[in-house]
Amino acid sequence: MFPYSRRFLSSCLNARSTRSIRELLQIKEVPVSPIEVKGWIKSFRALKKVSFIDLYDGTTNETLKVVIPITACPEVQGKPSLKTGQSVVIKNAHWKWTPNREQSFELSCSRDDVEILGEVGGDFPLQKKYVSLKQLRKWPLWKHRTTYLASLLRFRSYIETELTKILSNESFFKVQPPILTGSDCEGGGELFYVESNDSRITPGASKMKYFGQDTYLTVSTQLHLEVLALAMRNVWTLSPCFRAEKSDTNRHLSEFWMLEAEMCFVDDVRVLTQFVEDIIKNLVRSLLLQQNQLLPQLVPEEGADATEEVIKQWNSLINDKWTTITYTEAIELLVQRHSGEPFNHIPRWGNALQAEHEKWLSGTKFGGPVFVIDYPKDCKAFYMKVNSDNKTVACFDLLVPDMGEVVGGSVREDDYRRLIAEMEARKMNIQELYWYTELRKHGSVPHSGFGLGMERLVSWLYGNHNIRDAVPFHRAARSTIHL
Amino acid sequence: MFPYSRRFLSSCLNARSTRSIRELLQIKEVPVSPIEVKGWIKSFRALKKVSFIDLYDGTTNETLKVVIPITACPEVQGKPSLKTGQSVVIKNAHWKWTPNREQSFELSCSRDDVEILGEVGGDFPLQKKYVSLKQLRKWPLWKHRTTYLASLLRFRSYIETELTKILSNESFFKVQPPILTGSDCEGGGELFYVESNDSRITPGASKMKYFGQDTYLTVSTQLHLEVLALAMRNVWTLSPCFRAEKSDTNRHLSEFWMLEAEMCFVDDVRVLTQFVEDIIKNLVRSLLLQQNQLLPQLVPEEGADATEEVIKQWNSLINDKWTTITYTEAIELLVQRHSGEPFNHIPRWGNALQAEHEKWLSGTKFGGPVFVIDYPKDCKAFYMKVNSDNKTVACFDLLVPDMGEVVGGSVREDDYRRLIAEMEARKMNIQELYWYTELRKHGSVPHSGFGLGMERLVSWLYGNHNIRDAVPFHRAARSTIHL
Repeated sequence: MFPYSRRFLSSCLNARSTRSIRELLQIKEVPVSPIEVKGWIKSFRALKKVSFIDLYDGTTNETLKVVIPITACPEVQGKPSLKTGQSVVIKNAHWKWTPNREQSFELSCSRDDVEILGEVGGDFPLQKKYVSLKQLRKWPLWKHRTTYLASLLRFRSYIETELTKILSNESFFKVQPPILTGSDCEGGGELFYVESNDSRITPGASKMKYFGQDTYLTVSTQLHLEVLALAMRNVWTLSPCFRAEKSDTNRHLSEFWMLEAEMCFVDDVRVLTQFVEDIIKNLVRSLLLQQNQLLPQLVPEEGADATEEVIKQWNSLINDKWTTITYTEAIELLVQRHSGEPFNHIPRWGNALQAEHEKWLSGTKFGGPVFVIDYPKDCKAFYMKVNSDNKTVACFDLLVPDMGEVVGGSVREDDYRRLIAEMEARKMNIQELYWYTELRKHGSVPHSGFGLGMERLVSWLYGNHNIRDAVPFHRAARSTIHL
Repeated sequence: MFPYSRRFLSSCLNARSTRSIRELLQIKEVPVSPIEVKGWIKSFRALKKVSFIDLYDGTTNETLKVVIPITACPEVQGKPSLKTGQSVVIKNAHWKWTPNREQSFELSCSRDDVEILGEVGGDFPLQKKYVSLKQLRKWPLWKHRTTYLASLLRFRSYIETELTKILSNESFFKVQPPILTGSDCEGGGELFYVESNDSRITPGASKMKYFGQDTYLTVSTQLHLEVLALAMRNVWTLSPCFRAEKSDTNRHLSEFWMLEAEMCFVDDVRVLTQFVEDIIKNLVRSLLLQQNQLLPQLVPEEGADATEEVIKQWNSLINDKWTTITYTEAIELLVQRHSGEPFNHIPRWGNALQAEHEKWLSGTKFGGPVFVIDYPKDCKAFYMKVNSDNKTVACFDLLVPDMGEVVGGSVREDDYRRLIAEMEARKMNIQELYWYTELRKHGSVPHSGFGLGMERLVSWLYGNHNIRDAVPFHRAARSTIHL
């Protein structure tokens, strides 16, 4: 049951702010009154007898074409000229069906009906000519006024909204584990330290820690999620995570969003991978239904997959059963290929898979997503459940073409003694994670979980090759925070 | 269109993890096979001829009653005893309709069918006796295993999911402004400073800032949201925000979540307040439809409103038109009341409203939510649009009983020169917000936005009096981060 009165809400905003271009382009019946529309000029062309405005307002990939017949605007003299980047309101536009044209109706108005809301300076960087993604990244204030990058953000919005619905439907509760934490979940050590600015700049105050102890930004919310799963069965979160990465690549961010989920009574990594596959396939089914709204017709010349390629990939994602191989099988395949065509890093059982290995597996070898399961325990974090071979852990990485690992997860060790023994073997500071081990003392249950990198998922599915474009204002090593 | 195959997804998890108690309690037809159920023992009572298990699994407020007739379990001898806090799996339970009882079916099994998954130590703090919220806050690992606090988190999950649907339906795009930022949006100065831990602890490295400049945790994402609104018309976010507050009250957190929205072409504060009212009313309509699932039957003796009170309040929220008064009118009312029954702080035009003033307005005076609009400009932030009286700004605070301000918003100054003039008058560092002012130079449009404190909204609607309970692991001044 969906209790919201759509009309009631929309009418409130629209009463003052007018219909969006997305709504206008979907109109099925001739509107009874003259049209008012607001937006930004994408391009303006003045011919001898007629002028054309291409208008966008960020609600859709498409522009609205508005015609100004010259005969209708003798008063154009003395008016400021229309140009790319201006924001305008067009009042009293007239509507005419044009069923044989690309835009199924014609909107026309006089120049007098076009009021400039915001002027544009001569230094406005977005003009009609083509600009590369690399160049756009230098213009964070303006880059989202391009079709491709605005469309990418709308795509991400759609994905987050759909995943919210899917997980809610699966009886997962959305929870809010803390960002500020005292522990390093993964043990990777690439932490950001946090202190109140007052304590930092006030002389003598620096010994008074705001929280009374060293505090960091979370690298993963998993450990706290486990506490909540053991109270609510199935939980998930969509949360920023932070890693002071030294890697400066198109697949790394210092600040990124992770969708993490934790579920009780799941003790088999193949149930976990099946669940992840189901969720993503359901998401992609929904994307396919909306593909015309979601994908732009034109993509940049570099660093972006063509739209028809993207749709082809979506179709193959939902139609094929995804590959699952063990780490041991993966190493065998890699060694075989290495003997013919060497990698830079020698594949060897016991070592982590390198980016080139991951790309070959999901690219050349299988040409699609691959679950690699049962990694050697020394390659992975302390909290993963050890398999009966006592050498590998019940975990998975989901590798996808180009992007590498998009999801990682595992069955968690739920036995207090085995967990402590593993931490001791790794010479970890047990006291620091006292609370985490304590959770195994009262009513512990088998449980599993995973973390999905949102920027990587979005980029993989949208077909953009640099995850820095999948977040509005990226934060990465050595990149100054311009804004 | 909702393309997900619910059965497909659920069956995957359920195949291994069994049906949740929530699902069991909703079963309408006699199951064909014996029931398996997993969860934690809330209480266990052994009578002469029969024993009872009250089982919960965190998916609903209700417990599942399971009966063990003594005749069915002579093998009880030698088995570990059942007790509160243990996790168990019950296999082969038998189902019988009991339409006249509170639970419409009876589940029975033998003691042999109950397997203990996780034992409970003698020091497990949650026993059958009543524990106050104040005490529970000291047990962050276990407190969500109580009905009231688990229910509160499920309530929050429901609210976040519903708001996602509502805003998506209103054509708002969900975006992800950065948490790490170089500027102090509100100018309040209560910032957290962030640096990579390596730079902090490595000798000599401290001058090498990770981002090449001072970096803070965001106090509000508004300024970045404005950039995105001017590219996508209507945007929203649900994001953690951070304030190194000195206030240590039941209404303040150092880490809290804000729902912020920003919309173009809205230049009237009354359109903005109407929109906020509509959104919250639609949310409450949805809560009313789900009230039995969302609210627990019993609430703590202190610090919580009774369930019938909560429902009464929801009904009055959707039935009444909410009050809107200007700040100037609010001061007049406060002065009037002060002359008879003095406040601690004298109400005076030009001063901020104090908590006691806000509580009186939304409590004794109007007994419900009150929009206070048009505050003096010196009480508010630099970015708000100045009204034609040149003394007040086009802004609002939504005050609600007990909780005070839950939402705050304003029309934003969209004119470059007026914005710069205001910043100069306030002696602000204009260079630091160069990018924000620059936004007004190219295609600026009238726009407005608001920020809604999620923990305050949740607490207000759920009827718990301390927002620290509306977030799983609260972070506040001088409170050590236990976990």
